[in-house]
Amino acid sequence: MNTAVDWRRDLHRHPELGFTEFRTASRVAGALADLGWDVVTGPDAMVAGERLGVPLEAELDAAYERARAEGGDPRFLPAMRGGHTAVVAMLRGSGQGRAVGLRADMDALPIVESSGSGHRPTRDGFASRWSGAMHACGHDGHVGMALELAQRLTADPPPGPVSIFFQPAEEGGRGGRAMAPTGLVDGIDLFVAVHLGLSLPTGALAPSIDGLLANSKLRAVFHGRSAHAALAPQDGRNALLGAASATLALQGLTRVAGHQTRVAVGRISGGTSSNIVPDAAEVLLETRADDGDVNADLEARARAMLAGAAQMHGLTVEVELIGSVTTARADPSATEAVTAAGRAVGLRVVEPAADSAVASDDATALMRRVQASGGAATYVGLGADLAGPHHTPSFDFDEAALASGVDLLERLVRG
Amino acid sequence: MNTAVDWRRDLHRHPELGFTEFRTASRVAGALADLGWDVVTGPDAMVAGERLGVPLEAELDAAYERARAEGGDPRFLPAMRGGHTAVVAMLRGSGQGRAVGLRADMDALPIVESSGSGHRPTRDGFASRWSGAMHACGHDGHVGMALELAQRLTADPPPGPVSIFFQPAEEGGRGGRAMAPTGLVDGIDLFVAVHLGLSLPTGALAPSIDGLLANSKLRAVFHGRSAHAALAPQDGRNALLGAASATLALQGLTRVAGHQTRVAVGRISGGTSSNIVPDAAEVLLETRADDGDVNADLEARARAMLAGAAQMHGLTVEVELIGSVTTARADPSATEAVTAAGRAVGLRVVEPAADSAVASDDATALMRRVQASGGAATYVGLGADLAGPHHTPSFDFDEAALASGVDLLERLVRG
Amino acid sequence: MNTAVDWRRDLHRHPELGFTEFRTASRVAGALADLGWDVVTGPDAMVAGERLGVPLEAELDAAYERARAEGGDPRFLPAMRGGHTAVVAMLRGSGQGRAVGLRADMDALPIVESSGSGHRPTRDGFASRWSGAMHACGHDGHVGMALELAQRLTADPPPGPVSIFFQPAEEGGRGGRAMAPTGLVDGIDLFVAVHLGLSLPTGALAPSIDGLLANSKLRAVFHGRSAHAALAPQDGRNALLGAASATLALQGLTRVAGHQTRVAVGRISGGTSSNIVPDAAEVLLETRADDGDVNADLEARARAMLAGAAQMHGLTVEVELIGSVTTARADPSATEAVTAAGRAVGLRVVEPAADSAVASDDATALMRRVQASGGAATYVGLGADLAGPHHTPSFDFDEAALASGVDLLERLVRG
Amino acid sequence: MNTAVDWRRDLHRHPELGFTEFRTASRVAGALADLGWDVVTGPDAMVAGERLGVPLEAELDAAYERARAEGGDPRFLPAMRGGHTAVVAMLRGSGQGRAVGLRADMDALPIVESSGSGHRPTRDGFASRWSGAMHACGHDGHVGMALELAQRLTADPPPGPVSIFFQPAEEGGRGGRAMAPTGLVDGIDLFVAVHLGLSLPTGALAPSIDGLLANSKLRAVFHGRSAHAALAPQDGRNALLGAASATLALQGLTRVAGHQTRVAVGRISGGTSSNIVPDAAEVLLETRADDGDVNADLEARARAMLAGAAQMHGLTVEVELIGSVTTARADPSATEAVTAAGRAVGLRVVEPAADSAVASDDATALMRRVQASGGAATYVGLGADLAGPHHTPSFDFDEAALASGVDLLERLVRG
Repeated sequence: MNTAVDWRRDLHRHPELGFTEFRTASRVAGALADLGWDVVTGPDAMVAGERLGVPLEAELDAAYERARAEGGDPRFLPAMRGGHTAVVAMLRGSGQGRAVGLRADMDALPIVESSGSGHRPTRDGFASRWSGAMHACGHDGHVGMALELAQRLTADPPPGPVSIFFQPAEEGGRGGRAMAPTGLVDGIDLFVAVHLGLSLPTGALAPSIDGLLANSKLRAVFHGRSAHAALAPQDGRNALLGAASATLALQGLTRVAGHQTRVAVGRISGGTSSNIVPDAAEVLLETRADDGDVNADLEARARAMLAGAAQMHGLTVEVELIGSVTTARADPSATEAVTAAGRAVGLRVVEPAADSAVASDDATALMRRVQASGGAATYVGLGADLAGPHHTPSFDFDEAALASGVDLLERLVRG
Repeated sequence: MNTAVDWRRDLHRHPELGFTEFRTASRVAGALADLGWDVVTGPDAMVAGERLGVPLEAELDAAYERARAEGGDPRFLPAMRGGHTAVVAMLRGSGQGRAVGLRADMDALPIVESSGSGHRPTRDGFASRWSGAMHACGHDGHVGMALELAQRLTADPPPGPVSIFFQPAEEGGRGGRAMAPTGLVDGIDLFVAVHLGLSLPTGALAPSIDGLLANSKLRAVFHGRSAHAALAPQDGRNALLGAASATLALQGLTRVAGHQTRVAVGRISGGTSSNIVPDAAEVLLETRADDGDVNADLEARARAMLAGAAQMHGLTVEVELIGSVTTARADPSATEAVTAAGRAVGLRVVEPAADSAVASDDATALMRRVQASGGAATYVGLGADLAGPHHTPSFDFDEAALASGVDLLERLVRG
Repeated sequence: MNTAVDWRRDLHRHPELGFTEFRTASRVAGALADLGWDVVTGPDAMVAGERLGVPLEAELDAAYERARAEGGDPRFLPAMRGGHTAVVAMLRGSGQGRAVGLRADMDALPIVESSGSGHRPTRDGFASRWSGAMHACGHDGHVGMALELAQRLTADPPPGPVSIFFQPAEEGGRGGRAMAPTGLVDGIDLFVAVHLGLSLPTGALAPSIDGLLANSKLRAVFHGRSAHAALAPQDGRNALLGAASATLALQGLTRVAGHQTRVAVGRISGGTSSNIVPDAAEVLLETRADDGDVNADLEARARAMLAGAAQMHGLTVEVELIGSVTTARADPSATEAVTAAGRAVGLRVVEPAADSAVASDDATALMRRVQASGGAATYVGLGADLAGPHHTPSFDFDEAALASGVDLLERLVRG
Repeated sequence: MNTAVDWRRDLHRHPELGFTEFRTASRVAGALADLGWDVVTGPDAMVAGERLGVPLEAELDAAYERARAEGGDPRFLPAMRGGHTAVVAMLRGSGQGRAVGLRADMDALPIVESSGSGHRPTRDGFASRWSGAMHACGHDGHVGMALELAQRLTADPPPGPVSIFFQPAEEGGRGGRAMAPTGLVDGIDLFVAVHLGLSLPTGALAPSIDGLLANSKLRAVFHGRSAHAALAPQDGRNALLGAASATLALQGLTRVAGHQTRVAVGRISGGTSSNIVPDAAEVLLETRADDGDVNADLEARARAMLAGAAQMHGLTVEVELIGSVTTARADPSATEAVTAAGRAVGLRVVEPAADSAVASDDATALMRRVQASGGAATYVGLGADLAGPHHTPSFDFDEAALASGVDLLERLVRG
């Protein structure tokens, strides 16, 4: 039997970006099928047209081939081809107990992992084998916990049904929103999404984190006109100027009194060499706010900035929404259930500080769907000491947190 | 026997960027060695330490392997490994005639060639096979003319010695400056660098173009600090902000009354996704002026802008000179020699208009060295109708210009 | 006897900017002296060297002459010459009751008041007579309430001593910090600063507002070099470019997760006509945060931006701190006292919403001094319906709030 | 009799900005009327509706009153009220000689004159008495020469008629264009506009300067929305952000290969204090080029930048053309006439260097009208050593140039 740590390290070595979790998802599906769970995957587990920011076909194909070559489960891979990498696994319980749903996200980040000797995954030989991708947010641990839990539950079934939602593309807010409309969460009584870390130390448990930010992720491509930079600069329209003007303006989107807001430009790419006026430039950006309407206003103003920047420099701009997340609030009954389970397994229950580290998570799409169909939901922070911050090359977490995380989830499921 | 057009089309299909002209240079060396010319190549033909903007080792190696697989001449390839792709070929003449030197540049540009049916290389099957590189400035034609000329001269030797300088990395101003200090041009009486196109129609000849601009090419890399864009934006220092501020400032480098000046930012690249504050961003830029001192002043001010942009956003910046070209002026005796040869072969001699298309060319480094050792030099425009402008995906030239170009050069060499 | 409304309307007609409140302060001092209170004014009421952003001598003189011509009290004007416009008035109480201190700020804003017929001060004839200045933040009401209160207390003395601190230059955070070190607040048991409006409706009372932001106000002057914009642009160094680059960067000072922050550029001024490269440009800006350390960090980064912007464009920059305010928190005992008094006079006690309108107020300097010497302090919001937002040309408040405000203060003083 | 130097110094003490030359123009008209010349002034000398950038009525009135108080000629002032400050003076000749026209511009610049002891006008007591205005381009000398010339011609009439066009508002290109359509230049055989300085030393004469640049002067006003910068920044739309983004973009208007171009932002003004989001900001800018079509393209792109900057920041922008000048070329016959006259009076005839100092002058509007009606015209540079560059606070010229300038003009008129 593999422990959460075993699974975590295997996944850490093989990090896959959003909608390309072919190896991860197929192995997850295979393991659960082998345990006898009902497994739904491919387009049945996620509405294809609701996905945002799906990679280019060439990238999907390359990742698929890599998964096939490096341990993907051939029974489940074909259904996932094209980026249909969600997995929902269900175990019927022993009786009429409440229906519990859990979320485990599976995707990694486009970060080059630290090769420093002080970085434990490097030192202990389970660092990413695939340069340019890294589990730098703990999703490997989330999947690991869910799989160890599944083994325990299989051995001794709980009183009610359990569903685990293995979600692709949490980063960017692209997968949860596509899993919600399948209806597979409808009928769940208690839904819990657990996240490791979040500035909480090992042993601490935050039963509900309500500060999750709504967000909008945009890809803007400025189009101009190419020219020789010295022979005829006047014939060119330099797409980088649109990117530069927009970036400075976006960074300055006015703060909104009384709200937490964020704006970030995370990528600019355009041009080849200095003597060619570049005719295209890509900008990736996002807005966030602790209120959906405030975020919608920020997004609208960001779009106006992109359009204005294009006009300033004689360019056009295409803007695509590639990710979108809502806020959600915990139900008191769900918070209480997690609090009780946490205390029972020896975790220290804390309230997240007003300025604790919170970002966005598209588990909110699943939470809102559960709540709309009558269930209760909460977003839970499971403490884990970190070696480096989330989303940085030196991120690593205290694996001791995994065992008590599995205990917590088991207790919760067993009621 | 291969004509200039045959050679040109083979090279057009196999475009190689600066310092990676392994296939081109080794085949050129092989062809001339087969004709019996003295051939110097590798580090003997170009001072390694004077090269600027040499590609990364991985890129050099990949290009080398491609050349080996696709027709590079194994006799000459090894000496070129690592980017030593200059070739100088010499033919001793039949008597004591004047020593003539010619320049032919070999490198292509990082442009994706047009796949439109209206683009002749595509239509006729000799478009670039290597996506992301293209002969979009006519260097394939320059090499083709030089090789047909060499065949003619071998068959019927001229009265004095002839040297042909096959130069790598003209784009960016990185190769000519490294060939000059070998001293191989010393002792040449008449040096001519010919360039096709330049807004002159087929049949026209500009015996001297004096408006070549001095330039400086810089690569700036801004370094900041990574952070999660929503959890702790305050811990990040976004390198893209330095790139954006610098780009807008650079674009506005004040014009200099009475001079032709240019400033261009041709590439920005940094970051991966919008939720990670990027810790590095690369900017490629260049300054140009019709006077070396004016260009030096522009470069100094550009460097101050890069430093100031870094300071503004809490970043550091590394700036590397990756290309540098001087101005040069034609000697009247050289202009007269070209004028006479051109008239003799039926070309229409024109003066370049004040606002004719001129840029930079590091043939100037060779010209200045020739002049310093007592010889005469000129930069010549050979008319060729163009299908699209220089440095754009639809560039193509009228191949009819090649035959009269060879006639011109032969006449010049024979005196 | 003049009511709070009478005083308010007289002051509204004669708005005076920070440190030029010569008419206001001298008339306040005169009225209280006539009532028999002890009055301290001029340099004794405010440490001259601690003032920030004092106007130029010419402006001070012009305002002084205007005050002399339009009703300033000649008994008190001379001591105020040069911007020493603080007034502290004290009444000994009838017994040994607790010592109470109140703050009333006196300055107006550089806003042109609305001349629209819908604007009540205009319609009823008490709009500003002095174009370019306006009581657009309710300080006229604060002074009016304090003076009606003084009349009531004189008629029937309270059990303990009362001090009223009439403060200049609250806008910009320049006067309170200079009054605190006189020590005149030392020994006060209960200190209350009341502000009208703040998004609270008439009849509401917020006994403590803790969200006051720390701030730093800076004046930056960029210095460049003048030149004819067409004859020799290269000889000029355009100071406006520094102002423009800095403004865009400042607007984008990165948000700080979990905190309320603000950055604003409120004024740029430089140059005369388009054909002269301007050699100087002034920028007024401010940073704010709900935490003093966060604000100090924002200020440091703002200064780096100003320095970097200067370097980018070949300029120098002088930066002067012209205002500075700290945060402060209410003492529970003070909050309770205000709550009790408010209920007693029929006000509806509310808690300010998390996103209620709060800014900065340098009453915090007086509050902190009181607290340091053993007293209790709070910052109180007194509801008043507004016709237009604070700091805008159509600002006006419901004068009905003044009477209950005086009731509140009287009750508080009488214990 | 007053010399050119006497007149020059009186005008230098009393500098008047464009369209407010009430004292200057009325005294010029008076002096010429006293000499018996026919004088046309007011709306008859300049088409009112063709003026651009006329000052606000309040400024016109203030300048008018000042002129009335400080020596303006009451016979001519009333017709000029409102900015109709052109004067055309005509002397019938003694016979049928050719008709000669001369241009003398009268306006000063908005510059604070140097008060340094090294500045001769300050040292010798004829510096500007009116702070904020200065003759920093030599127009005082132009008028001085024309008036001394008129005295000489009156004493000894030339063979043909002479007209002198005293032009207002040359700076900014606002007056010449309005004088041309009166038709008063029609019928002139030889038209000459002389300018002092222009980098030519005393004693030198450039009979024709062809590099005059076309230009367009724009005033842009960005309109946003006011708000309290801390209470509700999200409600504001900061007009300064539009000004800043536009300024950086404008400074970077792409150079045009083969042409001389200029772009300058010379003034930004907006806002009052840092805690009020400013709702308006003014920007003054100009484009120039050595070709009218190129300038028209630059102007169009500048307007797009202004519009785009407004859109980026949620603003609107009004753009007004406040000045506009065309290019013009000299007629060979006019050049020859000036060359001959110059040599005859001992001036050294030079050709302006390709990079000599040239800007714009709206004498070109008069030159083009002369040429359209069959006459010949030229723009003449009269050397004068300078103490500081044109358009700077330390500008001053060698007054010795004035006497030979009058000699030159007299010779030219007498044929």
